[in-house]
Amino acid sequence: MSAEPAAVPSGDDPFEWIDEAREKRRRAGLVRTLTPRPADSPLLDLASNDYLGLARHPEVTRAAAAAAHRWGAGATGSRLVTGTTELHAGLEAELAEYCGFEAALVLSSGYAANLAAVTALTGRGSLVVSDAGNHASLIDGCRLSRARTAVVPHSDPEAVRKTLDAARAEPDHEGRAVVVSDSVFSVDGDAAPLAAYATACRAHGAALLVDDAHGLGVLGAGGRGALWDAGLAGDRDVVATMTLSKSLGSQGGAVLGPAKVIEHLVNTARTFIFDTGLAPAAAGGALAALQLLRREPERAGRARAVARTLHRRLTAAGLAAALPDAAVVSVRAPSPEQAVQWAADCRAAGLAVGCFRPPSVPDGISRLRLTARGDLTEQQMDEAVGAILSTAPTA
Amino acid sequence: MSAEPAAVPSGDDPFEWIDEAREKRRRAGLVRTLTPRPADSPLLDLASNDYLGLARHPEVTRAAAAAAHRWGAGATGSRLVTGTTELHAGLEAELAEYCGFEAALVLSSGYAANLAAVTALTGRGSLVVSDAGNHASLIDGCRLSRARTAVVPHSDPEAVRKTLDAARAEPDHEGRAVVVSDSVFSVDGDAAPLAAYATACRAHGAALLVDDAHGLGVLGAGGRGALWDAGLAGDRDVVATMTLSKSLGSQGGAVLGPAKVIEHLVNTARTFIFDTGLAPAAAGGALAALQLLRREPERAGRARAVARTLHRRLTAAGLAAALPDAAVVSVRAPSPEQAVQWAADCRAAGLAVGCFRPPSVPDGISRLRLTARGDLTEQQMDEAVGAILSTAPTA
Repeated sequence: MSAEPAAVPSGDDPFEWIDEAREKRRRAGLVRTLTPRPADSPLLDLASNDYLGLARHPEVTRAAAAAAHRWGAGATGSRLVTGTTELHAGLEAELAEYCGFEAALVLSSGYAANLAAVTALTGRGSLVVSDAGNHASLIDGCRLSRARTAVVPHSDPEAVRKTLDAARAEPDHEGRAVVVSDSVFSVDGDAAPLAAYATACRAHGAALLVDDAHGLGVLGAGGRGALWDAGLAGDRDVVATMTLSKSLGSQGGAVLGPAKVIEHLVNTARTFIFDTGLAPAAAGGALAALQLLRREPERAGRARAVARTLHRRLTAAGLAAALPDAAVVSVRAPSPEQAVQWAADCRAAGLAVGCFRPPSVPDGISRLRLTARGDLTEQQMDEAVGAILSTAPTA
Repeated sequence: MSAEPAAVPSGDDPFEWIDEAREKRRRAGLVRTLTPRPADSPLLDLASNDYLGLARHPEVTRAAAAAAHRWGAGATGSRLVTGTTELHAGLEAELAEYCGFEAALVLSSGYAANLAAVTALTGRGSLVVSDAGNHASLIDGCRLSRARTAVVPHSDPEAVRKTLDAARAEPDHEGRAVVVSDSVFSVDGDAAPLAAYATACRAHGAALLVDDAHGLGVLGAGGRGALWDAGLAGDRDVVATMTLSKSLGSQGGAVLGPAKVIEHLVNTARTFIFDTGLAPAAAGGALAALQLLRREPERAGRARAVARTLHRRLTAAGLAAALPDAAVVSVRAPSPEQAVQWAADCRAAGLAVGCFRPPSVPDGISRLRLTARGDLTEQQMDEAVGAILSTAPTA
């Protein structure tokens, strides 16, 4: 079709700088590697985000498999062309209904949902007030939005209020402002002061956008989420993003809010418009998980209870664990090296735990991150606590 | 947990501006709506990106379903924590091996793969030379990267060369440059001059990053892609991104390149690190599709042949169709309104076609977009051509 390309020059390697970056990571002890797991791992899982243990629930996996058979392995196109099936529409209706919002829109990941929501609801000339602890996808949304982004200290409604005040006083202020926050922060498991944020927003005519990735399935009646819990679900100035890949055990993300906001995203959000629709199996799995949650609403409370139990037992033994607001229990480690060693020792003792260290932790403090799965048995909790305590570094 | 939020004020609606935006879209005739399709649509599909008709191939759907049963409905966590299964590792090895690259990394979408590749390989102080026709996800990658982005005219190697020349002459030039292009452009179905781009890159020590979303499965021996076709696959200065959601009939995206580049992405690419791993069903479906392609390599050539046949028959009848380089046949419409009407008339005649109009078309020209699916029968091609010609606007 075209002429032969020139041969690769033997001298230049345009990726030579990567060798240096790799060496720097190695010296800092911060090399990350992928460890493929088998289907039947003997490890007790406190490392995933499968808060309710639904990823392998037979109703959920059967629904995922059935959707692949019925609808195909992929959605075949973008949502506006061929990628919207009746299954997608059904999932969106159920998600909105269950969580108390007017409408919902499903995307291929929570990351895509956050990019879509932030970019479509802000833009040049508007202000985004963003919590310092926000997830990478919200931060990237802010960067993409071309809005002015004011990062405020973590969980500080007074700082949000002051920032909105100051913006209103500026001569070139167009008046559009959105306050953006996670509902539950992944690293420490702490909840955002959503009611106070809403109050600050309402005093200034600002909108509130909340990523409820770690709240859905855990907080609120029947796991309806942090916004439901705060009495904010469905309010006309509130937009939520969620993920289908944590409590719902599947894959995908969603934006929930007033119908006109969702319609606006359909028309303008690039990560929605220019992406293939979510695979039917993921949509089917998430829908089955939602239906299960509706039928067994106690699953959410059980996850919170497991988290409190783990926290109580670990702190009673002298560990520095943050009081969990949802289903994440975060335990501090003395150093990144010791955190890695601790996690490895847990693993050797049969327990998979998360290990957060720089640059994934905003405050530089390394941690073990435990998922208080709602389906853990008493015996599994005993095993987990035993493994963590017996391997704890003596700092 | 916290105080009650203030009530929603009855006056202010922070999303009032959306009403205006909606009205503006309505007046311009550019409102997009979602049309859920049933599982057993009677329409002949020339609208999807299912180039080889594999999304509903029994081997692919069975593999997707089996993966959901065996591995669960979701990957349960980010790839660096619990989200890498042996299935993901197997898919990555097979994808790299088949397409002729040293290593591959699978992400949850092609959008995420492009954001990952562009941001991880560039950054502040480096230069990205980006084709004016590039996909939204590459453009968003450039925006996120904080690199200096030079947009060059569509498919113009001379412009690329000049831009690299000029950059080298600048005093603050750090020397890192990446040329970024789609391999096949979605709107017109035309192929990028990859060999000439590579030659320009090699004269300047720049890297070449190519999104082969529309080339994989269609171009190159056995559908190994546009870079294989151009003799560039596996070269140490070349990185490819791909999607698992078009020819492979599933969902997800991938980055392929030198092992050290892939390792760098694992350590630094935010849309990889902070996203849940691809759902097992999607990974399993894509792997089955790849294995099918390996066994039946003629599928790729068949898609190209269908495209050429459709083009020949439509242009013979007087329509303005672009010569297809892959499996996309683009037919010009006189106006956005007529394009929409034409697509609707095709639909009424039993044929689903894509309809591209502003702002999704870079040149403002509205088009029907036909997917030359490799599994179309002669009779289906007759039906498709008949429906398009009988509904064509008389401009």
